[in-house]
Amino acid sequence: MFVAHCPGQVTRPIVTDADATGVAWLDLLDPTPDEQALAARITGQRIPTRADLEEIESSSRLFMEDDAVYLSTPLVRRIQDDFFVSPVGFVLMRDRLLTIRFTEFSSFDLIAKQITASKETYSGDEVSVLLLEAVVDRMADILEHLGQSLDTLSRDVFQADQPRQAGRADQMLRSLLRRVGRSGDLASSVRDSLLGMERIAIFVSENKKHDLSEKLRDRMSTVARDIVSLNDFVSQISNKVQFLLDATLGFISIEQNNGMKILTVVSFIGVAPTLVAGIYGMNFHDIPELNWKYGYWYSLALMAATIIIPLLWFWQRGWLARGR
Amino acid sequence: MFVAHCPGQVTRPIVTDADATGVAWLDLLDPTPDEQALAARITGQRIPTRADLEEIESSSRLFMEDDAVYLSTPLVRRIQDDFFVSPVGFVLMRDRLLTIRFTEFSSFDLIAKQITASKETYSGDEVSVLLLEAVVDRMADILEHLGQSLDTLSRDVFQADQPRQAGRADQMLRSLLRRVGRSGDLASSVRDSLLGMERIAIFVSENKKHDLSEKLRDRMSTVARDIVSLNDFVSQISNKVQFLLDATLGFISIEQNNGMKILTVVSFIGVAPTLVAGIYGMNFHDIPELNWKYGYWYSLALMAATIIIPLLWFWQRGWLARGR
Amino acid sequence: MFVAHCPGQVTRPIVTDADATGVAWLDLLDPTPDEQALAARITGQRIPTRADLEEIESSSRLFMEDDAVYLSTPLVRRIQDDFFVSPVGFVLMRDRLLTIRFTEFSSFDLIAKQITASKETYSGDEVSVLLLEAVVDRMADILEHLGQSLDTLSRDVFQADQPRQAGRADQMLRSLLRRVGRSGDLASSVRDSLLGMERIAIFVSENKKHDLSEKLRDRMSTVARDIVSLNDFVSQISNKVQFLLDATLGFISIEQNNGMKILTVVSFIGVAPTLVAGIYGMNFHDIPELNWKYGYWYSLALMAATIIIPLLWFWQRGWLARGR
Amino acid sequence: MFVAHCPGQVTRPIVTDADATGVAWLDLLDPTPDEQALAARITGQRIPTRADLEEIESSSRLFMEDDAVYLSTPLVRRIQDDFFVSPVGFVLMRDRLLTIRFTEFSSFDLIAKQITASKETYSGDEVSVLLLEAVVDRMADILEHLGQSLDTLSRDVFQADQPRQAGRADQMLRSLLRRVGRSGDLASSVRDSLLGMERIAIFVSENKKHDLSEKLRDRMSTVARDIVSLNDFVSQISNKVQFLLDATLGFISIEQNNGMKILTVVSFIGVAPTLVAGIYGMNFHDIPELNWKYGYWYSLALMAATIIIPLLWFWQRGWLARGR
Amino acid sequence: MFVAHCPGQVTRPIVTDADATGVAWLDLLDPTPDEQALAARITGQRIPTRADLEEIESSSRLFMEDDAVYLSTPLVRRIQDDFFVSPVGFVLMRDRLLTIRFTEFSSFDLIAKQITASKETYSGDEVSVLLLEAVVDRMADILEHLGQSLDTLSRDVFQADQPRQAGRADQMLRSLLRRVGRSGDLASSVRDSLLGMERIAIFVSENKKHDLSEKLRDRMSTVARDIVSLNDFVSQISNKVQFLLDATLGFISIEQNNGMKILTVVSFIGVAPTLVAGIYGMNFHDIPELNWKYGYWYSLALMAATIIIPLLWFWQRGWLARGR
Ligand SMILES: [Mg+2]
Ligand SMILES: [Mg+2]
Ligand SMILES: [Mg+2]
Ligand SMILES: [Mg+2]
Ligand SMILES: [Mg+2]
Ligand SMILES: [Mg+2]
Ligand SMILES: [Mg+2]
Ligand SMILES: [Mg+2]
Ligand SMILES: [Mg+2]
Ligand SMILES: [Mg+2]
Ligand SMILES: [Mg+2]
Ligand SMILES: [Mg+2]
Ligand SMILES: [Mg+2]
Ligand SMILES: [Mg+2]
Ligand SMILES: [Mg+2]
Ligand SMILES: [Mg+2]
Ligand SMILES: [Mg+2]
Ligand SMILES: [Mg+2]
Ligand SMILES: [Mg+2]
Ligand SMILES: [Mg+2]
Ligand SMILES: [Mg+2]
Ligand SMILES: [Mg+2]
Ligand SMILES: [Mg+2]
Ligand SMILES: [Mg+2]
Ligand SMILES: [Mg+2]
Ligand SMILES: [Mg+2]
Ligand SMILES: [Mg+2]
Ligand SMILES: [Mg+2]
Ligand SMILES: [Mg+2]
Ligand SMILES: [Mg+2]
Ligand SMILES: [Mg+2]
Repeated sequence: MFVAHCPGQVTRPIVTDADATGVAWLDLLDPTPDEQALAARITGQRIPTRADLEEIESSSRLFMEDDAVYLSTPLVRRIQDDFFVSPVGFVLMRDRLLTIRFTEFSSFDLIAKQITASKETYSGDEVSVLLLEAVVDRMADILEHLGQSLDTLSRDVFQADQPRQAGRADQMLRSLLRRVGRSGDLASSVRDSLLGMERIAIFVSENKKHDLSEKLRDRMSTVARDIVSLNDFVSQISNKVQFLLDATLGFISIEQNNGMKILTVVSFIGVAPTLVAGIYGMNFHDIPELNWKYGYWYSLALMAATIIIPLLWFWQRGWLARGR
Repeated sequence: MFVAHCPGQVTRPIVTDADATGVAWLDLLDPTPDEQALAARITGQRIPTRADLEEIESSSRLFMEDDAVYLSTPLVRRIQDDFFVSPVGFVLMRDRLLTIRFTEFSSFDLIAKQITASKETYSGDEVSVLLLEAVVDRMADILEHLGQSLDTLSRDVFQADQPRQAGRADQMLRSLLRRVGRSGDLASSVRDSLLGMERIAIFVSENKKHDLSEKLRDRMSTVARDIVSLNDFVSQISNKVQFLLDATLGFISIEQNNGMKILTVVSFIGVAPTLVAGIYGMNFHDIPELNWKYGYWYSLALMAATIIIPLLWFWQRGWLARGR
Repeated sequence: MFVAHCPGQVTRPIVTDADATGVAWLDLLDPTPDEQALAARITGQRIPTRADLEEIESSSRLFMEDDAVYLSTPLVRRIQDDFFVSPVGFVLMRDRLLTIRFTEFSSFDLIAKQITASKETYSGDEVSVLLLEAVVDRMADILEHLGQSLDTLSRDVFQADQPRQAGRADQMLRSLLRRVGRSGDLASSVRDSLLGMERIAIFVSENKKHDLSEKLRDRMSTVARDIVSLNDFVSQISNKVQFLLDATLGFISIEQNNGMKILTVVSFIGVAPTLVAGIYGMNFHDIPELNWKYGYWYSLALMAATIIIPLLWFWQRGWLARGR
Repeated sequence: MFVAHCPGQVTRPIVTDADATGVAWLDLLDPTPDEQALAARITGQRIPTRADLEEIESSSRLFMEDDAVYLSTPLVRRIQDDFFVSPVGFVLMRDRLLTIRFTEFSSFDLIAKQITASKETYSGDEVSVLLLEAVVDRMADILEHLGQSLDTLSRDVFQADQPRQAGRADQMLRSLLRRVGRSGDLASSVRDSLLGMERIAIFVSENKKHDLSEKLRDRMSTVARDIVSLNDFVSQISNKVQFLLDATLGFISIEQNNGMKILTVVSFIGVAPTLVAGIYGMNFHDIPELNWKYGYWYSLALMAATIIIPLLWFWQRGWLARGR
Repeated sequence: MFVAHCPGQVTRPIVTDADATGVAWLDLLDPTPDEQALAARITGQRIPTRADLEEIESSSRLFMEDDAVYLSTPLVRRIQDDFFVSPVGFVLMRDRLLTIRFTEFSSFDLIAKQITASKETYSGDEVSVLLLEAVVDRMADILEHLGQSLDTLSRDVFQADQPRQAGRADQMLRSLLRRVGRSGDLASSVRDSLLGMERIAIFVSENKKHDLSEKLRDRMSTVARDIVSLNDFVSQISNKVQFLLDATLGFISIEQNNGMKILTVVSFIGVAPTLVAGIYGMNFHDIPELNWKYGYWYSLALMAATIIIPLLWFWQRGWLARGR
């Protein structure tokens, strides 16, 4: 898709060169080769491919070519409880901005809506700053949400009343571990995105310092400061995730202890009555009990006793309770 | 609730505009929409909502608008052995301070009491500094308490005489793990609060440097230095928590070993007597023992021996002791 | 092998002194002693041995001798899913470059191809910079590939639908652990290579600053900046590897719990029917059931019941399910 | 206790104001309220309580009041293999020093002895510096001792010949874990003390720089440098403790494996002979072996074989050895 | 031992004052009290004891006394696969160097040989620098060797074809853990030595800057840079050791899973045939199978089937394979 976002107009597809005239923000979304070629012809710039945008060296992510600033970064997209990372590219030319991306991002949609609903005009630089601000805001929202879900997770891990059913405990722990793991992955991906955004903010501030108006320069500084504060937050989050991971491992081990105790009780309980039955199954000639009138009932009572008495002992010692 | 704390007067609710005249500290506590609207009208400022105060980017936490300084931070409230985090907002205007919060804090109560009991007047700036000082003091108290409870916890983890009863060990370890976990959570929350307070101290010092008296500036510096020292302390605390967590995992594993040994003894003990009973239950024609006069008693003695001798062996080798 | 890479010519072996005249890049690949001696005679420089290049002190890795700059670093070579580290040496003379290595590297091949296919001439300095750029590009590619394979690994670790078969789980976890381990090893080796490259970049920039053209100096700065960005990336990678390792350990522990539960069920299930058989094998004179008409069938049904009822109970409690 | 340490005199209790005239070092040791009041009257300064000295904010630990410097820090006291932490306070006045503490410290005793045995006079500043030096020396001694005991511990953990008796292994591991834990606790407490001492050194250097003689200033610098070197050492110690903790967990897990193998052997060994006995206890009419002349002895031999052969197999495969 | 190393002479013992005249390097090796007294008389300096050299505060390790520079550091000595740490002292006087040590070090031997074989004269300063260089070289060699043995270890941990024999796995893992542990210990000891050497290099550079020739100053700078590079290397090594430790723990846990599965199979396999034997050992009057002609053989076949069929099932599900 290759579209133009213009003030006061609905977002419209760009098909011919004329469609792009005077447009401050050209937007390539998962473009076809034809759309890429059209964008290249219209802007007179080389259009980076997806592989180009996935490079990780700073010289591939941030560079100038013929007066245009090329920027790229991985960006997290969260959808419900899932998320993935996809690269985003910006080609910031003298009078317009070209963005290249391969999935929707709510921050881009927000700015597109703001611009198409507006009556003022926007320069390419201004759109860039708006997008950076929106992306940072979105990262902050993702982190706030993650922080809250970690608090819930922490409560789930450390809460006093865990399921009574040993059979379900495993399932719960596996699910906890998975949630902790996904949180760690998300935190790590957000960190990647923030690092990319931080480098973009620094690069633009340095390389466009004579082009940007003072107001835009101030807004870029604010963006940079916000990224620093989010980095602090994501570090805290990572520590919490690591801590929850370790604690979850601890509860898994305690669960193992529990399993072992139940197994021990089961093993113990079986031994005595089986032995009693075996004894009275022996073929000695003169086993007195065999001749007792109620010998059989006595043997059954003996077996029951060898089951019930140890059970009571174990129960009284706390082997059968799963603890608070 | 929307109240005024004035020197020499009991804290009183603000219902009309007149109630707020000349009041240096206006305090919104879990306000209704009406109270928020009233506060906005009285102060002529936008009143941040709870969602606004929960934002994490520095540009949302600390900013100036029409001469007023807007500040927010998450703050820990500890009640007995529990705690939670709730956001707090400050709107620091030229001649008065508006605070917004959603729960009681002992530091706020303390300063409110100090002011209402006082005969001097307080400027909005002075109230702000008093509150910052009280909050930092309260954080220090929480950390001191946490440090002491970690020392107790550490002693509980590493103490020599742990419960003799294997059945209770699990419960004790689960409770240890939970206490360690809660301590880690509290340390992490205090760190968040301190980070927020630190940013507030820096922001106020920078943005109000021409407004604050030299004495208040000095007190702000002291607050900042105290936060630095508390940060060092909370780092130490976090290391201890992590260490205790790892050590607790170790004791859990040793407990597993113990369980395994008991299980092995139980399994071993059952095998031999059962086999003896099985042997004399075989239907061979000429099993000499079956014809012995005291054959039955001999077999019972044999079984008893196959139980007691291994037990003695295991006991002598330390398999049945739970260690010092 | 001792070869010359010249513009417009195929790479050719150097056998006599004349073969090296005017050649900007002399390349020793796993050289024989004869080839080393020849290179020494041609260049008039001491040729470092493999042991020399494997030294780790900076004074052995980076030094000047008679106007020539000696540089060495370990370098990662990745082949399919495997990799190894091998030392590389550069002797940067006034007008030419000698490289010493003991295995092929795709970055060296790339620059050799570029030069032999070119029509321009290259100075020794220029070849050096080209090689540094190619090596850094190659490191970046390895890291990108590693980052992607870690994402796959992370999904494999945390994915919801793990194998139903407990028997296979072990194998899967062992393979996961091995993949995590190999990733960690690769990240660590890349870090070593980057550290070596970084020191080379700094040393060359400092010691050749009067010899390098401004353009080459700029390209060296870009190389240095790229290395910094790759170092950030490899740190992120290392954190992810560590996190995956810990999480894998968690799943291994849960798998143990599962094993324990199955074992408990198996132990429990065997006890009751065996006891029933034992009871009716006792030799009491008047066991009423023995005289029942359908006594045998009743006993079989009783055994079946003591198997099926606990199984149902365990199944209903989730002991037999392996969780989502 | 409230005592005076004077050159050339035995340490003597202070009971009246006159007892303190011209004394450079007044020493409160776990003082009664009366002694505190006396000290306050004599010095004309507020005497901090134990709670005051346990505060953790720097503004509570280090401050000036009426020309007197108030200092406090937690201090480790080691007695044999045990240790605890107790707060220490210094009130450094123009011409004398008041110390407040709640337990004996060998460093204080040392300096008290040095002064009472001396013929020279000491100023309050000089006594302070002597005490700081002695405390730092004592911390260094504790750390040296801890370093050595960690080396022993490390050898115990990694030594080749661990106890043959599985029953004792647990006890040994629990004791190792406890020693590792106590070492970690001590390291952490020393770190706290060093941090407190470091702040005291900095605060005194800054606030008394016009009062201290050049020689004392130099000695204060040396104290500060020593603390830096001890901090490095304690970091190393902490890393070692952490490493030993992790390694101990590893050996605990291997011990579990061992337990599991023994349990497996025990379970396996019991199955076959029991089955043999069960077979010849069946009531089929024509079991040929039952009629064999040496049938009974054959069955016993068969049982023995089913015990011995698997045992040999397990033994030969290393299941019964506990490894080097 | 108290010896002199002089150019052009074999190393010779010092017995009288005359033996030391004009000697640049006096060497005390595990000296007797008499030798210490002789060295003190000859040099006119206090000779530090072993306890003095084991102090850890920088003021005890590095100081000047009467124009002489006193230096000490712990130093690693590696012998085959073992190593230990022993303190080394230097007393650097105006015109000669006294070394004090308690064990042989290959670096000292090397320089002693170089000097005794030389025809030039050496000043005390020059010998000092030579020794520092040799020690740093030796540390680098130890680290290179350690790096290589970690690579081997890493391959052993992560290699695909681990022993088939479960019985041996434990032994292998215990040995792996021990090797990892010893590597960690060595890395930590080298770090201690490097830290000591670094402080010596800095102290000498600062305190002898007017005495050292420009050439020696340059060589001291190179030593300092080398130490920095070795510190980077030892950090990498420590990370690898930590990682290998964690991974080894993972394989130990997987081994536990394996043990559990085998145990489960063993438990399961025993239940059914025992039950069959028990059933036909019951004393019911009319068990039809007992009267079958081939009833006994049928029962044996039934038992065999209850063994073989589950075994096949387990085998087919991967419970009996130990994985690749
Ligand atoms: Mg948070
Ligand atoms: Mg990711
Ligand atoms: Mg990344
Ligand atoms: Mg957080
Ligand atoms: Mg961890
Ligand atoms: Mg403490
Ligand atoms: Mg929290
Ligand atoms: Mg939180
Ligand atoms: Mg936070
Ligand atoms: Mg502390
Ligand atoms: Mg503490
Ligand atoms: Mg840990
Ligand atoms: Mg475990
Ligand atoms: Mg990624
Ligand atoms: Mg990545
Ligand atoms: Mg490597
Ligand atoms: Mg990442
Ligand atoms: Mg861990
Ligand atoms: Mg386990
Ligand atoms: Mg040591
Ligand atoms: Mg402590
Ligand atoms: Mg040490
Ligand atoms: Mg560690
Ligand atoms: Mg660890
Ligand atoms: Mg375990
Ligand atoms: Mg390395
Ligand atoms: Mg290596
Ligand atoms: Mg050591
Ligand atoms: Mg050390
Ligand atoms: Mg390395
Ligand atoms: Mg770890």
